[in-house]
Amino acid sequence: MTVEIPTTQRALVFDTWNGPLEVRQVPVPSPADDEILVKIEYSGICHSDLHVWLGDLKGMSVCPLVGGHEGAGSVVQIGKNVTGWQLGDKAGVKLMNFNCLNCEFCKKGHEPLCHHIQNYGFDRSGTFQEYLTIRGVDAAKINKETNLAAAAPILCAGVTVYKALKESNVKPGQIIVLTGAGGGLGSLAIQYANAMGMRVVAMDHSSKEAHCKNLGAEWFVDAFDTPDIVSHITKLTEGGPHGVINFAVARKPMEQAVEYVRKRGTVVFVGLPKDSKVTFDTTPFIFNAITIKGSIVGSRLDVDEAMEFVTRGIVKVPLELVKLEDVPAVYQRMIDGKITSRAVVDFSL
Amino acid sequence: MTVEIPTTQRALVFDTWNGPLEVRQVPVPSPADDEILVKIEYSGICHSDLHVWLGDLKGMSVCPLVGGHEGAGSVVQIGKNVTGWQLGDKAGVKLMNFNCLNCEFCKKGHEPLCHHIQNYGFDRSGTFQEYLTIRGVDAAKINKETNLAAAAPILCAGVTVYKALKESNVKPGQIIVLTGAGGGLGSLAIQYANAMGMRVVAMDHSSKEAHCKNLGAEWFVDAFDTPDIVSHITKLTEGGPHGVINFAVARKPMEQAVEYVRKRGTVVFVGLPKDSKVTFDTTPFIFNAITIKGSIVGSRLDVDEAMEFVTRGIVKVPLELVKLEDVPAVYQRMIDGKITSRAVVDFSL
Amino acid sequence: MTVEIPTTQRALVFDTWNGPLEVRQVPVPSPADDEILVKIEYSGICHSDLHVWLGDLKGMSVCPLVGGHEGAGSVVQIGKNVTGWQLGDKAGVKLMNFNCLNCEFCKKGHEPLCHHIQNYGFDRSGTFQEYLTIRGVDAAKINKETNLAAAAPILCAGVTVYKALKESNVKPGQIIVLTGAGGGLGSLAIQYANAMGMRVVAMDHSSKEAHCKNLGAEWFVDAFDTPDIVSHITKLTEGGPHGVINFAVARKPMEQAVEYVRKRGTVVFVGLPKDSKVTFDTTPFIFNAITIKGSIVGSRLDVDEAMEFVTRGIVKVPLELVKLEDVPAVYQRMIDGKITSRAVVDFSL
Amino acid sequence: MTVEIPTTQRALVFDTWNGPLEVRQVPVPSPADDEILVKIEYSGICHSDLHVWLGDLKGMSVCPLVGGHEGAGSVVQIGKNVTGWQLGDKAGVKLMNFNCLNCEFCKKGHEPLCHHIQNYGFDRSGTFQEYLTIRGVDAAKINKETNLAAAAPILCAGVTVYKALKESNVKPGQIIVLTGAGGGLGSLAIQYANAMGMRVVAMDHSSKEAHCKNLGAEWFVDAFDTPDIVSHITKLTEGGPHGVINFAVARKPMEQAVEYVRKRGTVVFVGLPKDSKVTFDTTPFIFNAITIKGSIVGSRLDVDEAMEFVTRGIVKVPLELVKLEDVPAVYQRMIDGKITSRAVVDFSL
Ligand SMILES: [Zn+2]
Ligand SMILES: [Zn+2]
Ligand SMILES: [Zn+2]
Ligand SMILES: [Zn+2]
Ligand SMILES: [Zn+2]
Ligand SMILES: [Zn+2]
Ligand SMILES: [Zn+2]
Ligand SMILES: [Zn+2]
Repeated sequence: MTVEIPTTQRALVFDTWNGPLEVRQVPVPSPADDEILVKIEYSGICHSDLHVWLGDLKGMSVCPLVGGHEGAGSVVQIGKNVTGWQLGDKAGVKLMNFNCLNCEFCKKGHEPLCHHIQNYGFDRSGTFQEYLTIRGVDAAKINKETNLAAAAPILCAGVTVYKALKESNVKPGQIIVLTGAGGGLGSLAIQYANAMGMRVVAMDHSSKEAHCKNLGAEWFVDAFDTPDIVSHITKLTEGGPHGVINFAVARKPMEQAVEYVRKRGTVVFVGLPKDSKVTFDTTPFIFNAITIKGSIVGSRLDVDEAMEFVTRGIVKVPLELVKLEDVPAVYQRMIDGKITSRAVVDFSL
Repeated sequence: MTVEIPTTQRALVFDTWNGPLEVRQVPVPSPADDEILVKIEYSGICHSDLHVWLGDLKGMSVCPLVGGHEGAGSVVQIGKNVTGWQLGDKAGVKLMNFNCLNCEFCKKGHEPLCHHIQNYGFDRSGTFQEYLTIRGVDAAKINKETNLAAAAPILCAGVTVYKALKESNVKPGQIIVLTGAGGGLGSLAIQYANAMGMRVVAMDHSSKEAHCKNLGAEWFVDAFDTPDIVSHITKLTEGGPHGVINFAVARKPMEQAVEYVRKRGTVVFVGLPKDSKVTFDTTPFIFNAITIKGSIVGSRLDVDEAMEFVTRGIVKVPLELVKLEDVPAVYQRMIDGKITSRAVVDFSL
Repeated sequence: MTVEIPTTQRALVFDTWNGPLEVRQVPVPSPADDEILVKIEYSGICHSDLHVWLGDLKGMSVCPLVGGHEGAGSVVQIGKNVTGWQLGDKAGVKLMNFNCLNCEFCKKGHEPLCHHIQNYGFDRSGTFQEYLTIRGVDAAKINKETNLAAAAPILCAGVTVYKALKESNVKPGQIIVLTGAGGGLGSLAIQYANAMGMRVVAMDHSSKEAHCKNLGAEWFVDAFDTPDIVSHITKLTEGGPHGVINFAVARKPMEQAVEYVRKRGTVVFVGLPKDSKVTFDTTPFIFNAITIKGSIVGSRLDVDEAMEFVTRGIVKVPLELVKLEDVPAVYQRMIDGKITSRAVVDFSL
Repeated sequence: MTVEIPTTQRALVFDTWNGPLEVRQVPVPSPADDEILVKIEYSGICHSDLHVWLGDLKGMSVCPLVGGHEGAGSVVQIGKNVTGWQLGDKAGVKLMNFNCLNCEFCKKGHEPLCHHIQNYGFDRSGTFQEYLTIRGVDAAKINKETNLAAAAPILCAGVTVYKALKESNVKPGQIIVLTGAGGGLGSLAIQYANAMGMRVVAMDHSSKEAHCKNLGAEWFVDAFDTPDIVSHITKLTEGGPHGVINFAVARKPMEQAVEYVRKRGTVVFVGLPKDSKVTFDTTPFIFNAITIKGSIVGSRLDVDEAMEFVTRGIVKVPLELVKLEDVPAVYQRMIDGKITSRAVVDFSL
């Protein structure tokens, strides 16, 4: 199998925070000995991409930059020391990479906690370009049968919700509350939770009720118009849900979750509130033996597991395919709160 | 074996919150069909006893009352439906009892979370009297060889620290920080932690350093005079301890613990801060995948396990034996912060 | 609510092993202080009932006897010390009862391992009669909405497969092999496994293929006509299933399972082979870090959890309702291998 | 820091199975880009080395060969792509290496189960030579303070027992039986078990009683002269030990362990019996919910953890330092059963 690799490629670049986003010709990189070159076919557009471009995450990102961290495509070149990859294999490019594979966190399979992490689309050129190099050990294996466009958002959004669900420790047959359930993460979470045997209480604005129930939520709670959320959920779930995952980016739902979760239940924080602070009352927390956990993306194994649910068709990703040139318009719709399905760049368009 | 049981007995009673504590003659109760009658030989004096008497816990206690919830003694009468107990057996009377043994929490071995709990020395007559009835399923089995005076404080203080250590999920060879390590709970915790293979960082006032190290702490951190606790502990433990148990009844050490605990580490809250509230920054919490847990006393199984370490002589309880009439004086010394070892009523004095 | 309770009732009795099974009038028992009286409406017929009657389990059963250990009905009388039950509540009567609730196994929620167990329909009068007493703490709570006829077999067959699936440690998205998948236990197991997110390989005689696939098996393996089962399953599952549950009552499938299970996978033994012995090769066992576990029925909590899947309609029990007088005929069909769905005595017939 | 590296070195080579073992001059290898060159200072002599040389493990070893797989020394040269290593660092060379770090087992931290494993001293030149190359990700980090001679045997023997103890799932305060407790693995296991809070029953020939008790065993059982081992241990441990680790290379102790282990307890198989087969009775196995597990060496993380107990001085390794030329004599003493402490080649002798 031979693939012709051009010397230049199209990439979406910005030179200043919140500055113009332009499609330019840039060189195609060559893989190092331990890297593969991936021809990106699809790249999901994540809210974090918007925030990086806006300059909201200056501490962890650089500029000028090519954004994007949910890339799926084909292997077109392979470094000489790489094992386990063949030309033509489908590969995924996720956010966190270049972990050392040799520290205590890497050895435990918690690579996202490694000190050596570099993030595509944050502090390194990302997936909003046609070709990208990545270490063989970092790229995600994707089956030939998997819908590649749907695979892209799993590499960040999908694995984030899947990992949070695992961390919740909610068992098949038990109940989980998902705040912000109608959004991008939440919509995936409802499906993953069902696939894992959990019973879902979806919380969001009332306009999302039908959407959430169609995806598999057993109950829906209006997050904005319910008089006493804590007692309502406690009653609905006969003592509180066994777990809660907070995708909402606000302080109040996080603090409420600690109050209504079942005794010995677990609240997982994924979304960050505005000022990042949360306050809670330790008396019921201690008396009810509650657990609060932070969860962020997932390991390489979590990615593989999350991907398989998509390959099997159990989790479906509502997609909107766009051109690379459309990314700025997608960002504007994100700012305006007008994105409902997952926007994914289709490089063939 | 026959034991003569009197019709009246000595008990320490108070009629009003913070009112006089008097030793009076009260009737000896008869055990119900599922109860045993225990002749109390020793009863530990817990800080909670003081707070109940002061009226600080009105919501969960009654008045007039006989306090005390750490009683150890001998079985002198047995209800007709009781199994598993013989006259002369040593028995322990702990805080929480009368759980239903039939709800989801009881069936999971989390009896302290049962809705049907009644607390000796809080909302029922406690162990500051010579005879007490308790259900056979609630009383703790104590070996004949166990030091009964030392067994008494294990029934509340001991099991509380042992359970918190289990909840910390710190493995043998890993590091745990104990705040308030020089106090009553902390002094037991250092020993239990060592017996469980953990390496201990003790935090307290500098005057407690020798005490903590003698009990087995590998490191000591001055909780009041260390300029930057967070970076000091992070450095000392090469990345943070794997777990922290907070026994200190203050807000600051709890908030610091969330900052210095190792990535993916666990902070267990046992002590309650003054106003009960704690605030923390969710950004590092999420990025470092931290867990916070509340822990309170322990199950019947936890009591049995905690007791065995004392029976084996692995955990030693520094004791001060006092008369029943001395309890008010002990309360005063608690208020003045002058209690160092565990005060235990010896009914033979 | 008042219910008239007769003084005598119909019961299916046998006086000698393998002797006549006759419906006779026997006295209705009165509940002790800690017991309830249940009017049995449905009683599942289990293979063990047959074996007890045949005298195959003499060590653990008595004679004369009323068999049956899968009873579901209504509470019609309540002992004075019972809490948590109301007249008219639906209650389940399972095999193992009278555990002490106070030994190390009971305290851990492993009541079936308690030394004090008595078994309805084995060493005590069972559910093949209209009225039965049972301790309040032993009876299973059943929701009013639950299909009572379907609830009955869950009390033994259902909880057995549910517990074995929990013990397999197979996670959502992972693969489990079920041997004897087309039988009574297996048919329930396929459904429970799916409800828990597992992917099922069903093994049985080729005539069961459609049946197993209809119930939710993803793959089917002919247990009798596949040339090399071990390599076939290894290939089919790309390295072996993560878990295996053996329901087949034969030695060969148990020994094969240890060979084809995935590295670090778990084989759960439920069914007993003829002579009870199994031999395996420890070299691959050790090199591949395999686990073998024995599993038997389940705790009271397991019963509650297993029941809820039926209440929710997720697990369906294929039923054949019969009269009490029909039990001997059902036994004969069991001996002839002609039972496909679960036979359940309907006392209203 | 500069270290002079010679072009040739001393190595212990054999050309035919069970043929002459000779010290010869062989070339010093150069590290590849991802490798380091380690100057071996100590190399433990393992029973497996003997069996490789004897030709008992032909399927997994090659010939001619330099044996040895417990090497500890200093880093003297570093490949250009290696991170995390400095010249002069202390490094350990263990048995299993070259795992892919990218398969499901590697991603879960079970590298010994990877298909890509190569074994030093088995199918690749091992540590019975002065210089060895190893990938940076495979070498074990050893602290400067660690006793290097004692570190060597931890790389195979130590991690094997430590991992088996972790796999036993025995908790602090619970009881473990160690068969073959007086041997090389067993002597380390007694110490590790104690350091992990376990209570140890040592089983071996009566001549080993004092040795085992000195190392920390609480009880000793004569494995050869006790009339009824099963009932003896059941009684001694009041219901059976919570776990058993079998180091004895015989069938009988393995089969007995399944009988006397506590209900719901775990038997870990490490040692291989002669013909490799084990037979057990599934009836008590199922009724008592027993678990049997195979365990082999450990992951890179297990090595690090096991090493730290030695660094801290908690686990002591009884050593006998020998010259490289002495290895054949040590093999002979192994065959004669005359090795008591761990023989370690000291390359400075
Ligand atoms: Zn993202
Ligand atoms: Zn790392
Ligand atoms: Zn207390
Ligand atoms: Zn309860
Ligand atoms: Zn019991
Ligand atoms: Zn049955
Ligand atoms: Zn691998
Ligand atoms: Zn070895």
